[in-house]
Amino acid sequence: MRTAILTVGTEILFGQIVNTNAAWLSQQLNDLGIDVMYHYSVGDNPGRLEELIHFAFHDCDMVITTGGLGPTQDDLTKEVIAKAMGDRIVRNQQCYEELMKYYDRLGRHMTENNLKQADMPSTAVPLPNDQGTAPGFWLEKDGKIIAAMPGPPREMTNMFNKQLRPRLEKMQDSAIYYRILRAFALGESKMETMLLPLIDKQTDPTIATYAKEGECSLRIASKRPTLAEAKAAVADMEAKVLDIIGEFVYSCDDEELIEVVGRLLIEKHLTISCAESCTGGLFAGALVDIPGISAVFERGLVTYSNRAKMEELGVSAATLERFGAVSAETACEMAEGLQKKTGSDICISVTGVAGPDGGSAEKPVGLVYIGISYRGKTEAVKVQNRNVSRRWNRNYAVLNMLWQIYKRISG
Amino acid sequence: MRTAILTVGTEILFGQIVNTNAAWLSQQLNDLGIDVMYHYSVGDNPGRLEELIHFAFHDCDMVITTGGLGPTQDDLTKEVIAKAMGDRIVRNQQCYEELMKYYDRLGRHMTENNLKQADMPSTAVPLPNDQGTAPGFWLEKDGKIIAAMPGPPREMTNMFNKQLRPRLEKMQDSAIYYRILRAFALGESKMETMLLPLIDKQTDPTIATYAKEGECSLRIASKRPTLAEAKAAVADMEAKVLDIIGEFVYSCDDEELIEVVGRLLIEKHLTISCAESCTGGLFAGALVDIPGISAVFERGLVTYSNRAKMEELGVSAATLERFGAVSAETACEMAEGLQKKTGSDICISVTGVAGPDGGSAEKPVGLVYIGISYRGKTEAVKVQNRNVSRRWNRNYAVLNMLWQIYKRISG
Repeated sequence: MRTAILTVGTEILFGQIVNTNAAWLSQQLNDLGIDVMYHYSVGDNPGRLEELIHFAFHDCDMVITTGGLGPTQDDLTKEVIAKAMGDRIVRNQQCYEELMKYYDRLGRHMTENNLKQADMPSTAVPLPNDQGTAPGFWLEKDGKIIAAMPGPPREMTNMFNKQLRPRLEKMQDSAIYYRILRAFALGESKMETMLLPLIDKQTDPTIATYAKEGECSLRIASKRPTLAEAKAAVADMEAKVLDIIGEFVYSCDDEELIEVVGRLLIEKHLTISCAESCTGGLFAGALVDIPGISAVFERGLVTYSNRAKMEELGVSAATLERFGAVSAETACEMAEGLQKKTGSDICISVTGVAGPDGGSAEKPVGLVYIGISYRGKTEAVKVQNRNVSRRWNRNYAVLNMLWQIYKRISG
Repeated sequence: MRTAILTVGTEILFGQIVNTNAAWLSQQLNDLGIDVMYHYSVGDNPGRLEELIHFAFHDCDMVITTGGLGPTQDDLTKEVIAKAMGDRIVRNQQCYEELMKYYDRLGRHMTENNLKQADMPSTAVPLPNDQGTAPGFWLEKDGKIIAAMPGPPREMTNMFNKQLRPRLEKMQDSAIYYRILRAFALGESKMETMLLPLIDKQTDPTIATYAKEGECSLRIASKRPTLAEAKAAVADMEAKVLDIIGEFVYSCDDEELIEVVGRLLIEKHLTISCAESCTGGLFAGALVDIPGISAVFERGLVTYSNRAKMEELGVSAATLERFGAVSAETACEMAEGLQKKTGSDICISVTGVAGPDGGSAEKPVGLVYIGISYRGKTEAVKVQNRNVSRRWNRNYAVLNMLWQIYKRISG
């Protein structure tokens, strides 16, 4: 099924918002095996909107619109679709009742213009909106389909998942299933090279690799007559992939590394404390984003200055003098000092050159030492980041800290 | 000038990347007074691309394309534009020389297919690319303009600013100038109400308000025959706006609050330390993102547990018992303990209920206390966030901490 995504709204053409709806819908439709041929964005202008609908249908079987379903005078997507499809607007009884109930529940007075949201093309099937007031609709005519959804992403994604996806799945003569594996410490091109024997021979499942901020991910997808067959094919390929790059893979469900590590810490009830220099609190900040982490997260110290490293962690002046703040020795003393102070199961430290300045030939920007005390042993790990930017260097240091923890506690 | 933005690339239609190019270009064009009528995205398909160019020109005077200028077989934007405009592709000598120089400089061997990047329509004017190998071009014919730029955002924005913007500015019969004011602790609707007397009467300069994650901003724009006149009109209106909402405005140059506070701390050489509970290092992490902050940022403590609050900051067990960890009393003792420990000019603390769980009728999710020690005085500030999400609550707490600092040191 060839599809066009049509986003309606002047704020897109002003560049006030980025069109994330089109990207999100494209992912969902491609996952369903539906080909997305075009994205269009147009303002709240009836003439141009109608022309675009006709233009899309000369090449596509389906048009999905977002936006312009609200109660104000600007909102005219329904009227234009009715005209383009040779239909007319009527008040939909079901939508009218839903709308009255919605305002009753809120105890709010409904202004007259809100009633407009109960109108739709006479042959359309309403798509209820349980996140807002504007329903969407589904209209089929002469083998062409048009589906209209509201613009706010929360309303749109919810309506798609609950209303549109099941309809589209029923129309497919095959099922698509996929899993996304996520790996760390393995570049995209190296991953591709390692998996080449699998990728080369393969038409289904397909294997696609993606790079993302120092991590990379792998999408294994299969399109088969039934979902069970697609799942089996993906599981089989996943096993083969893990045989080759398993040691780098931390999730087979497209999770973030922080989610995986946070879950492991909570499940295994391993207490943790951290001492950060170059990342300046980012590691603690990421950890605290995990609900329930308070059960295991004991303490974080941002020891940015040498004085703070000495006073808070007992790093010796001699070590700082001889090896410098950015060194394996300092990282280890930071982790050990933290261990003495907190007694946490895992004590992790980090010190590095975040840039943009402060680098040298010996210690270039992007150099990071991670210290980790775990089960009575303290080790330092050296990481040399590619120096992209101060922010990137710091984020990548946090990922490396998480990876060091993951490697020790995932077994 | 009516313009369409045409993004070429299959990865957009797969939803692998969000089309930030179209949003960015829209902002720039609107700022220049150029009307953006459409965004289109299409894959690397010559037939559909050519149809879209024709479709755009039936309504627009200019089409700006991004993407499809690279060396691979997929890249066919130039060929299609040449065909659509009735032109033919030739090797451009200037581009050829630039390309040779580029590879010479890198000391890299140029493969044959790279030469394709020196080709362009015979009547096109090349737009050099100093961030990559693919030049863009500008082509005018029969009153229609087509400008082609590469897809990678860094290359595109750079080419636009250096090559396209000056050309487009010359074509305008007026100049646009604008400033963006940023305010905190003032809702968008309240700001609008306060400024209504100014907004209502005004056609030029225009005043537009935007809300963004707890902050709001105000754009004052003027379109006049000369830039000097537009600047004067904006300055005049800015003074009127500041008369009304000046106490809430922290930047007239669209800066982030963290940038403004970081700059002030460094300029005034005010040392700072922080003790965070609910934000868990986010405040320190944000501060450390400012280059040069090491001169004033002394120490950060993430005292997430009660034990950490007592051991690190000397918060008394009695206070925690009687008032709870989330209280004005605890916030003050945290800030005072930090002051004793570090002696920093500013010691700021935060404790709150980040959610999603842990809230009560008395202390609902989103409640935050900020303690601040400055010039021998310690105060607590209570903030009740609208509870949107754990992440939002924490980010908004950080903004409030920055705002408390700003109010004290900006005078």
